[in-house]
Parts: sequence; structure tokens; C-alpha cells
Amino acid sequence: MHNAVILSIGDEILRGKIVDTNFAYIAKQLYLMGLNVSAHYTFPDTEEWICAGISEAAERAEIIILTGGLGPTRDDATRNGLARFLGRKLVLNQRVAKKICDFFSRRNIEMPENNLVQAYLPEGAVPMENNEGTAPGIFVKYKSKMIFLLPGPPREMMDVFKSVRLILQKELQLKPKSFATFKTIGVPESLIAEWIGEIELPESVDVAFYPSLSGVNIYIKSDSSDAIESAENILSKKLQNYTFAREENRKIEAVIGEILRSRNETLAVAESCTGGMLASRIVDISGSSDYFLGGVVSYANSTKINILGVDEKTLSRYGAVSKQVAEQMAIGVKNRLGSTYSIAITGIAGPTGGTPKKPVGLVYVSLSAADKTYVRKYNLVGGRNAIRTRSASAGLNMLWCKLKFGDIENYPFQDGGKFC
Amino acid sequence: MHNAVILSIGDEILRGKIVDTNFAYIAKQLYLMGLNVSAHYTFPDTEEWICAGISEAAERAEIIILTGGLGPTRDDATRNGLARFLGRKLVLNQRVAKKICDFFSRRNIEMPENNLVQAYLPEGAVPMENNEGTAPGIFVKYKSKMIFLLPGPPREMMDVFKSVRLILQKELQLKPKSFATFKTIGVPESLIAEWIGEIELPESVDVAFYPSLSGVNIYIKSDSSDAIESAENILSKKLQNYTFAREENRKIEAVIGEILRSRNETLAVAESCTGGMLASRIVDISGSSDYFLGGVVSYANSTKINILGVDEKTLSRYGAVSKQVAEQMAIGVKNRLGSTYSIAITGIAGPTGGTPKKPVGLVYVSLSAADKTYVRKYNLVGGRNAIRTRSASAGLNMLWCKLKFGDIENYPFQDGGKFC
Repeated sequence: MHNAVILSIGDEILRGKIVDTNFAYIAKQLYLMGLNVSAHYTFPDTEEWICAGISEAAERAEIIILTGGLGPTRDDATRNGLARFLGRKLVLNQRVAKKICDFFSRRNIEMPENNLVQAYLPEGAVPMENNEGTAPGIFVKYKSKMIFLLPGPPREMMDVFKSVRLILQKELQLKPKSFATFKTIGVPESLIAEWIGEIELPESVDVAFYPSLSGVNIYIKSDSSDAIESAENILSKKLQNYTFAREENRKIEAVIGEILRSRNETLAVAESCTGGMLASRIVDISGSSDYFLGGVVSYANSTKINILGVDEKTLSRYGAVSKQVAEQMAIGVKNRLGSTYSIAITGIAGPTGGTPKKPVGLVYVSLSAADKTYVRKYNLVGGRNAIRTRSASAGLNMLWCKLKFGDIENYPFQDGGKFC
Repeated sequence: MHNAVILSIGDEILRGKIVDTNFAYIAKQLYLMGLNVSAHYTFPDTEEWICAGISEAAERAEIIILTGGLGPTRDDATRNGLARFLGRKLVLNQRVAKKICDFFSRRNIEMPENNLVQAYLPEGAVPMENNEGTAPGIFVKYKSKMIFLLPGPPREMMDVFKSVRLILQKELQLKPKSFATFKTIGVPESLIAEWIGEIELPESVDVAFYPSLSGVNIYIKSDSSDAIESAENILSKKLQNYTFAREENRKIEAVIGEILRSRNETLAVAESCTGGMLASRIVDISGSSDYFLGGVVSYANSTKINILGVDEKTLSRYGAVSKQVAEQMAIGVKNRLGSTYSIAITGIAGPTGGTPKKPVGLVYVSLSAADKTYVRKYNLVGGRNAIRTRSASAGLNMLWCKLKFGDIENYPFQDGGKFC
């Protein structure tokens, strides 16, 4: 397999001022092209470091991609670092110089003199078109290595990456790679790992897990498309009750939304400890107004009573964090907003507010449908934010199961919990 | 200055499945502690690579921080990589083992056997507490190097980082008072930079800006505590109308909450395009039940009418995204929940739903107080999530100004906007 090393350049990244999203973008593009990213470095923006970075990358990979440090200021040393590594001079590329001048004259701005620096390329290097800015990408072949320099601003980087893709496809005569994704909810990573350990998958198949507070993603990859097909068949069966999506960027909120939309059904939520987080996740899906009617953040008891119609006696008898109140919140919001389904959450997110009988992490999640109202009791762990996120995920987990299986009492759920 | 190298471990990062935010977090924390991050590597999760990564980092720095690869599956090789680098065995730490067992029994889940792997530490290494998950951090001193292993999930990493900070402060005898923080809201980074350029600060003082969707953080740093004191005096005056906090981890939601609590006042919110995000940010502060009564996510027009009492005619005449509806939402939720203040947000977060007259990014934010109801009109930029986050921040910005200054019409606000 062809190996690549990606090198991000910039003090701003090393000081944590910006999160480096370029690297993830490039890494993913290369992965999907069937190339292997063996390492990534972030180095300061000095000529010495950049030259050292390219040398170290060259020991590990035949493809070396740098981003950042192609601007017009003295902080921008990537061109010089490459020239030093190659032992070549920077020479003015007339075609690039003309393009830069045109860029400014089209915008009726006088060109700062510095900007011409961007037209200097190491001898033998080729510019790659940048339609989003003035710094061209730079490509150079050196011995058995292919070295690419991309600008740092993400839009410019992505534009120049189009040329990188074409060059790599041509130079390496790439065939498409086989891979598959399973996004699951309801089982912990360690249990999935145990299952997969017990299954016989084709040897060439590589399996990776990524757990989050909303489920576990499983990725499989192989050089052989037959092997992937066979592994896919086995895993789809084993994971059928837990897999909500097969595409990387698909969230459970979106899957639920699509089912609701197709059935002309609607959803409302009532949240206490999650305080709007569940609603916010649902609304994060563009187009959610088709099926999401809204919700009530009933943080205070008075709000539970006045807006949701929770019974005052129930509240004082069982407490706000109870099966009974969760149920009444779910039914209340469903009736008030007139939705097909509703989810209600009440719990103790901590760090304060816990008691021996009702400890931090105790959360009741209710799902109300036309035929039945369910409540599950959870004892969740983690900090305030983790407990809230897990609670919201638990609600989505219940709704997804209901939509998919009709009845949900025999299906397992994220983070344990029990029907009550 | 002390040098650090950060090493992120994981095929998921190298495949671009996830964006590595841990690195930015750690880099910033180290920078603020006065340490220099000289490089960052991302390596695959095999024992060989991890061992090689630590060796290479050791050539460049005395502080080596690894994140990721501490999970319970066979992908998780960081412990083994460290053991190989040290030339030591992994041994079971009984205390950690007990903690992991407790973690599962509290959740009423049977512990998968795999999980005990996390209790194995290289000989001579010390566990660091992780309150957010089962994998402890690991600290080991080796020759002149300090090596830290942190779990990959961000919430767990941040929790364990607290121990890293304490260990570094103690081992390196870092001076505590060599920097100061100003957390501001309401002015763009470029304007602050201009102001600070005009001010004469002591020469040894280094200024850094970290802009975010919720404001700009300004950090000043110096070896001299006198210089910092003098710079602090100057900047406190210049920035007094914009500085809501002087501590790194303090959020504007918390500052607002403290003022409300001290005055025995309460808050309610009504959200359309932010869809619960504002409520969720407020509830993220522990103890917010003292002053936050709750909110309504009035995503559908029917919810605006039925729960908030927005006038149907106003809705059809001006549209849901209008000054008039924002105002009625604010007044409606304030009356329904009986709060002292309310914030209401209605807008078009995109990417769909915009029109030439009401483009994506058009957002009305209303603040209602006893004396007056204000509405500001914003034209926000960015993707769906950025627009929603900026909208929520705008609401908090208005409320903070109202609480602090009494009248708000002469104060500037985050992301422009105009009273209407």
C-alpha cells in the first residue's frame, strides 16, 4: 500500500489557537482513495522545522502533503523549507506571478508587494491551481517521493486538493478501495469487540471501533472487495438490531427524522436535566421542522406543572426525578403540542443535588407513543455533561427502537437501564 | 523554556474519521502554563508506532503527552507502546482494577473481561484519576523525561488533564502568577487587536487572542509579575465594558447565573432556530435550577401559538422570523413561566429555508425585562451550527449587558446586529 505523511505547519495550531481541521479532511480523502496515512506531524513555521519535517516524513512515506505557511508574510516559510530540503533555489514563476497580479486587479485592490513571494517556486516544481486565493499549491517529485504544498485556509486547501487527487490517481494508477461502516447504538464497545472476536472474518479485513456518548461506530477495510462483502454480510446480521446507519456522516437524529417524515408523524420533547440538549440535537438536522414540533424545558417544578400539566401531588409524593413524573411529562408534552411521539427526561446530572436514595446519574427517560408510554430508569456515570448527553442519547435510542421494531421491551439499550 | 511534544494516537484520526480536538486543548493549556509545544505527532495505534513516537518525542522535549489508545480493545496499544519504550513489564494495579469493577457495578452492567486490561500499568508508573470513564491516566518519569498517557475521549482527557497540570506545576516549579486572562464578549478580535496595538504595555508582556463563537479570550503572559500587574491594570480599564470573566474556565452563562441568584431573579427562554441550544448552555451550569425556570422550544408555528401565545395574525403578517414574533415570544415565555427576564430567538439557520428578503443567517434576538423588551436584528455568517451558536451567544450577551449596565442601548454586541 502507498504511504502518506501529512504535515501541518503553524504556530497557531501548536498554541491551540485553532483546531486543525485540514488534517482530518486530507486524511479522509486519502483513506477513501485507498492510501494509507501513516503519520501526521504539526511543526512550527520556521524554515528549519519545515525542512526537518519533510526529511522525517520522507523516511516514512512516498507521499508527503504539507498544509499552511504559504501566505505572503515572513511567518510563511513553507516554500523556503521545501527549497532547503531539495537543495534548490526558489525561482519566480511568471505564470503564477501574472495570476496573482490579476487576482488583485480583478478586485480593484492594489497588490501588497509581499504577495509576489507566493510566485516563487523551488526549481523543477509545478504550481497547482488555487481558485480561492492567491497562493498556488506546489507539487514536486524528488527521487521516489511526491511532495505537495497546500495553503492553510480550509477553502483554499480543499480547492487545491482537487489537483492533488488527480496527480495521485495518475501517478499511482489507483484502484478503488473497499470499506464499510456500521453505526450502532445500544451496545458498549467492549461487548461489540467480544462479539467480533468470536466471529470469523476474512483475514484481510481490518476492524476499528470508535465509541462516543451516542453509540459505537465500526469501520472495516480490506484490499479485497470480496472479503469486505463477506464481512459485511456477517456483521449486518450480527449487528442488525443495533445498526442505525451505514454511512459515516449519518446521525441517529437524522435517521429518526427520516422515518418520521416518511410516516407523516411528529415528535415533541420535555426535558428537565438535559435542559434543551435533546431538542438541540434534533434541530441540528436541517429540515427537522418537517417533524419536530418543539419542546419544553421544564427545569423548575412550576414549569412542569403549568406548561406540561404534571400533577402537583405526584411531584410532591414521588419527587421530580421519578418514573411517575417522567411519564406525566411525556404524556403532557405530547398532548400539549399534539405530536405522535414524545420523549421526556428527568434526572440528576450533578455534581450537586444527589441523595443516597436518588444519586447523581439517576435518570428516568420516557417515550410516549399512541399505544403505550414507556419509562426506563438509568444509573448513568460521568460528569454533568456526560450524564446529560447520555440521557439524550438514551431517549433517541428508545425512539429509534420503537420506530424500527414496534415494540421495544426486548431490545437492549445504550448505557444499561431498565424498564420500570 | 520547557519543551513539550504531544502525541495523538489513533487510526480513526489518521483516517480522518474524527477531528482531533484534544491536541488543541492540551496545546492551549500548556501554552497558558508557560510551556512551549514544539511539535505534535499523530501516529497509528500499534505498539511499534507508539514506542517509536515516544522515542522521537524524547529527542525533542522533556514533556511527552500522549492521548488515545487506552480503551479496552486490541486496538488500544498505548500502554504496551509505553511499556516497550521503557523496557518494563505491564503489571496489574489493584486499586485501578477495583475502580473499574466499581464503575460497572454502579451501572448494573456486567463488566466485559476485556476491561481489566485498563488496570495494567508499566512498572513504576502512577495512575491519574479519570472521573469520566474507566481508563486511568498514566504518569511515569523516565530519565529526564516526564511521560503522560491520557485517554482519547475528550471529556475523559480533560478530566485527567487536571492531574497533569498539578504534576507539571509541582515538578517544574512553575510560577503561578505569570499570566492573566480577560474573557470578553461584544467586540471582534480585530478591534481588540487594534486597541491593544495603541496601548503601551510593558515590553516583556506577550499578548494572545483566542477568538471563538462566544467571544474573544485575551491572555497576557510574562516572566515578570510586576509587568503583568501593570498590564492587567491598563487592560482592565480598557476592556471593562466587555470583560465578563477573568478566569479561564468561567462561562458567561455562569456569570449571568451568579448575578441572577444574588438578586433572586429568574430567567426563561423561548427558542426557534437555536432549538434548545441556549437552554442547554444555561443548564450546563450546575446549580442553574436556582434561577432558570425553563424554556420553550417553539420550533413549529403551532407551538409558538399554543404555548407561547404568539398572535396568529402577527405570524402570518410578518412571518416567524421577524421582530414582532421575537418580541411576542419573549413576552409570552416570560408571562407563562413567570420569570424576571426572558430571551427569545427566531431565525434562519440554513442551509435551506433562506429567501432573498430573509436570507440564511437572519436572526432576531429579543430580551424582555420588567422595564422594557428589546429586539436586535443580526445577519450572522457560518454554517447551521455556527449560526445557532452565535445566536445563543447574542442572547446571553444582551442579558449580561442588561444585568451589568441596566440599560443596553449604547453597548456594543457580539457579531454586530442592530436594535430594531
